[in-house]
Amino acid sequence: MVIIMNPEASEKNIEDVISAVKTSGLDAKVMEGSQQKIIGVIGDKTRLAAVPIDAMDGVEKSVAISKSYKLASREFHPQNSVIDVDGVKIGDGHPVVMAGPCAVESLEQLLEIAEVIKKGGAEFLRGGAYKPRTSPYSFQGLEEKGLEFLQIAKERTGLKIVTEITVVEALDKVSQYADMLQIGARNMQNFGLLKEVGKCGKPVLLKRGLAATVDEWLNAAEYIMSEGNSNVVLCERGIRTYETYTRNTLDISAVAAVKHLSHLPIIVDPSHGTGKWRMVKPMAFAAIASGADGLMMEVHTNPAKALSDGPQSLTPEHYQNIMDGINKLSGFMKNEGLLR
Amino acid sequence: MVIIMNPEASEKNIEDVISAVKTSGLDAKVMEGSQQKIIGVIGDKTRLAAVPIDAMDGVEKSVAISKSYKLASREFHPQNSVIDVDGVKIGDGHPVVMAGPCAVESLEQLLEIAEVIKKGGAEFLRGGAYKPRTSPYSFQGLEEKGLEFLQIAKERTGLKIVTEITVVEALDKVSQYADMLQIGARNMQNFGLLKEVGKCGKPVLLKRGLAATVDEWLNAAEYIMSEGNSNVVLCERGIRTYETYTRNTLDISAVAAVKHLSHLPIIVDPSHGTGKWRMVKPMAFAAIASGADGLMMEVHTNPAKALSDGPQSLTPEHYQNIMDGINKLSGFMKNEGLLR
Amino acid sequence: MVIIMNPEASEKNIEDVISAVKTSGLDAKVMEGSQQKIIGVIGDKTRLAAVPIDAMDGVEKSVAISKSYKLASREFHPQNSVIDVDGVKIGDGHPVVMAGPCAVESLEQLLEIAEVIKKGGAEFLRGGAYKPRTSPYSFQGLEEKGLEFLQIAKERTGLKIVTEITVVEALDKVSQYADMLQIGARNMQNFGLLKEVGKCGKPVLLKRGLAATVDEWLNAAEYIMSEGNSNVVLCERGIRTYETYTRNTLDISAVAAVKHLSHLPIIVDPSHGTGKWRMVKPMAFAAIASGADGLMMEVHTNPAKALSDGPQSLTPEHYQNIMDGINKLSGFMKNEGLLR
Amino acid sequence: MVIIMNPEASEKNIEDVISAVKTSGLDAKVMEGSQQKIIGVIGDKTRLAAVPIDAMDGVEKSVAISKSYKLASREFHPQNSVIDVDGVKIGDGHPVVMAGPCAVESLEQLLEIAEVIKKGGAEFLRGGAYKPRTSPYSFQGLEEKGLEFLQIAKERTGLKIVTEITVVEALDKVSQYADMLQIGARNMQNFGLLKEVGKCGKPVLLKRGLAATVDEWLNAAEYIMSEGNSNVVLCERGIRTYETYTRNTLDISAVAAVKHLSHLPIIVDPSHGTGKWRMVKPMAFAAIASGADGLMMEVHTNPAKALSDGPQSLTPEHYQNIMDGINKLSGFMKNEGLLR
Repeated sequence: MVIIMNPEASEKNIEDVISAVKTSGLDAKVMEGSQQKIIGVIGDKTRLAAVPIDAMDGVEKSVAISKSYKLASREFHPQNSVIDVDGVKIGDGHPVVMAGPCAVESLEQLLEIAEVIKKGGAEFLRGGAYKPRTSPYSFQGLEEKGLEFLQIAKERTGLKIVTEITVVEALDKVSQYADMLQIGARNMQNFGLLKEVGKCGKPVLLKRGLAATVDEWLNAAEYIMSEGNSNVVLCERGIRTYETYTRNTLDISAVAAVKHLSHLPIIVDPSHGTGKWRMVKPMAFAAIASGADGLMMEVHTNPAKALSDGPQSLTPEHYQNIMDGINKLSGFMKNEGLLR
Repeated sequence: MVIIMNPEASEKNIEDVISAVKTSGLDAKVMEGSQQKIIGVIGDKTRLAAVPIDAMDGVEKSVAISKSYKLASREFHPQNSVIDVDGVKIGDGHPVVMAGPCAVESLEQLLEIAEVIKKGGAEFLRGGAYKPRTSPYSFQGLEEKGLEFLQIAKERTGLKIVTEITVVEALDKVSQYADMLQIGARNMQNFGLLKEVGKCGKPVLLKRGLAATVDEWLNAAEYIMSEGNSNVVLCERGIRTYETYTRNTLDISAVAAVKHLSHLPIIVDPSHGTGKWRMVKPMAFAAIASGADGLMMEVHTNPAKALSDGPQSLTPEHYQNIMDGINKLSGFMKNEGLLR
Repeated sequence: MVIIMNPEASEKNIEDVISAVKTSGLDAKVMEGSQQKIIGVIGDKTRLAAVPIDAMDGVEKSVAISKSYKLASREFHPQNSVIDVDGVKIGDGHPVVMAGPCAVESLEQLLEIAEVIKKGGAEFLRGGAYKPRTSPYSFQGLEEKGLEFLQIAKERTGLKIVTEITVVEALDKVSQYADMLQIGARNMQNFGLLKEVGKCGKPVLLKRGLAATVDEWLNAAEYIMSEGNSNVVLCERGIRTYETYTRNTLDISAVAAVKHLSHLPIIVDPSHGTGKWRMVKPMAFAAIASGADGLMMEVHTNPAKALSDGPQSLTPEHYQNIMDGINKLSGFMKNEGLLR
Repeated sequence: MVIIMNPEASEKNIEDVISAVKTSGLDAKVMEGSQQKIIGVIGDKTRLAAVPIDAMDGVEKSVAISKSYKLASREFHPQNSVIDVDGVKIGDGHPVVMAGPCAVESLEQLLEIAEVIKKGGAEFLRGGAYKPRTSPYSFQGLEEKGLEFLQIAKERTGLKIVTEITVVEALDKVSQYADMLQIGARNMQNFGLLKEVGKCGKPVLLKRGLAATVDEWLNAAEYIMSEGNSNVVLCERGIRTYETYTRNTLDISAVAAVKHLSHLPIIVDPSHGTGKWRMVKPMAFAAIASGADGLMMEVHTNPAKALSDGPQSLTPEHYQNIMDGINKLSGFMKNEGLLR
């Protein structure tokens, strides 16, 4: 950490800051600028986390230098992590696809979609049993019944199940059915939930919050990892901006950012990221070309009747077409050594 | 709801949309535009919530006309609501002030601050026992011990207690000590928590999410109210924008927006909203002048040693100075009839 | 400037950075961190503006410490500036009001509105003769004819004229009629225009760009001032955020920010800032209470027929009501010493 | 356009709105909703552009249905446009690359970079002679001298020249040297400049504004086209969001959006879009995979000494590596028919 003093800071101010730093067991070095003094803090900065340096008299601002997350950082773990979800590897160079309906609506619907998904080459069936919705009057999911349907679809197809966990109380139940727990965008900083998911050990798909920075996202992963669960996969799903044409702004550059800062795998969800099924294909290709480890896509055998998020769901034909393209593109990228 | 068809939509497309609307028990009327057809939907649109009209063939977009929240809307309850928190009224025309440290750190600290707060005229003591922090390595709060300290401060001063609830499991415990439950910005769309808080009946202070629209915020209030708890007070605390000089961008216009759209009281938190104690006074005055029902402010007897959010905490002197100003300003606004 | 090196930076990397700094005539000091080295740069950092330190091998990032603007900064000019526009003082403690139609539409319209404005106590008549519009098919202004109408209105009422300049070529013409030149939000970083306006010497009203930081805004003022024109008044008019209920998000905290960072006066435009006439009154009060030096408001004798921005224009009755409130509020704030 | 009335709107209000619509030469149809009336407007809505329907009594809001741009829309011109810049075709299916330094610094530098660019397969040399910079004290470009250097580089290499025009006064001069005029992000809504560039007929590269919606961007293109110049190529270069890790957030989904809404070619600038040279390669691949018609990239033979934007400039080696990848990827996408 570097502490920048005001041009008018007094000697007393500077001494107080140094004293606060040293009391925390760290060392401080003063540097004379042309207009103001700068104090460098030497040592493990987490010790200073509880000291509000910025509020001290004479301090203009402090600048963090090292990152606040550790287990999630590439410095800590230089090789890419490969997460094993009951035999399916995420982050090993092949694109993992998670597909399915936004919400589980009925057993018939789910089985029909699962067959389509499976045939196209996806390895995970996604589908919400517990749905977080903006309005309390929107469809909230089939809850436990939905989990049971997912279980049946899994038995029929061999697909792994990834489904959202929205409350700690449902953790035991959801863990029983899911191969991978999804933390949704609205819960990315639901720290109580992150900790419990960290304790349970199941692989976790951590979606980026609607307005989360990459730094906050990796800190959210750190919450899970610091409880002992390092099976975390990140999922970029679009951020909130002023643009209204798309539902969110899909930040493909987050893939490159995460690959640089962290060792965790990252997949991309172009369905939620754009909110328009027409844009899923070009964004899926963009994600793969940028180095993403996989995709999450919404597929519905009858999007026009889907109980939620219909406008962004693919028909089976579109899904199959995209899967063919992804397989070709991914293979080409790998063979040509275009990814690194 | 108005459904706008593509210029190239076929007759079949239009019939399908009309059929979907009518199947939901609503009526549809077609209007010929110069380039495209428009379908008006007549009836309670919540019935259509589950039908993804936008995904149907030939549909360009649909536009919601009525609001998705009801109990929180001014149409439903034209008079301003006044929320009674164990005798203290919020929304009755006098500015309610909630003040205190960001986090409860020790009994001594809390009692010292509580005396200052009380003397200055605040009616609520705020202070976090459970703290949601970006990094798992930051101070997370004293938890139950913090609640006990709040209880002692309440007994000594008579101040009401408002404190944050972050997980459903802590609800019984927190409810036992708190007069008002705070839902923090990161939990504004933690729907499981909103529902449980709705069931418990305690007055709720609902902070606006970091990137929440006013509409989403009122829908979050609706979650609480639809479970039977109408004792909801909103709190504007700044939204996330591209500007980095302030910690958040305090959206004072949300006060006027909420007053127009809803009957619920709204207070403003200039401490979190700006992240700089120097800006608390002008923003507190702005909030009162815009018609806010009160303020939440961070006060610390030693901001430079505060375990969290020190840079935005007021010293007792600054707090007292602001309280004097608020009382004068508020009285003047009322006497002159400047609010409405 | 502080330069933060990568943990893996080599000795050679560090020497190269130091060499680049010294070649620019500045001094460099190295500080050993626990994980990485930090290099402090001593001296006038504008000398380093052209050296892309961040691109050098081994550099993680550089952090600017001193501001990039100088003439606009409070350090350079500690007292508040008072701008004299042909006898009307802006920034002297009384609230200056600039009011009028969004666009000049006809002589009759303008004179009618000017009388209303004058009677209510405004000192400036605003009105666009050249209108920057999103679509080329929207009304673009009466151009020179509009300027002539403004001149007539000025002669009849004694009001000062503030009007927008959108292209350098119109500068001579607009300067002939206007007492104050307005730079609109879309032109805040039209640096060619800023420089010419800086050379001409006329008082300038510089609106904040749609997505400009306070730092960029003060740098835009610096462009004008560095050409010799220090008669700059800033105008906050709302920034672009994800919120769609209001046309923009009026950033009232920018008033306090500017007052801290700069000596220039700042006024607020609640009409463009909110896009809704109903919100103009509470936001005007908020602006005055936060310490703004004045207001800009759209008034129209027939908002429903206004050729642009009707929804945010006040009727004469609303305008008069707000002016009465502002005068009372402003006088009260001053008498009670609430501002500072 | 659809006009939504308030639930409390009177019959008189509705009649007034209908009358205003009809006076503009359009037809109006009233539809009874369950709670409120809706008025559909039939006919060319540009006729209504000047009538502020939203300000009329009883109106809740109006919703635009048809687009405000016409010449730029795909409805108007269903086939993709191919822009011919002195023999080089943009939008014909092969990826056009524009590369070079951010700013022209010296003849030696430029020639050296131009050779590298040419060898790698780029068809355009980019380089700023007039540089818009946030601070007036930053390097502002070599101006006419820079144009002359570009001319020499063109003669030596045969590369086409694309360079930024920032002020109308420089148009004749810049047009003399440039094959393609670039409108920078800060000037995207400098309507005076757009009109003049529209009149001059030269091909134009129109960068997206920092906070421009796709709709505003296409309207900016419409300004140029409505003056008779249809040789417009769009360039996505990142938008401003709350994320600070990247300089901007590169909105790759804008490629798909523009392809759907318009017939104009679109290229992507990953250098400005991310601000980090490490991210240029993955984002360049993502752009090509999403269907972009080309790329703009900053290349410098010595990024660490570049007078502006060094951190985002590629070395010749990185550039060559990316070009090889782009050529392979683009050829593969085409051969496999992955683009549509």
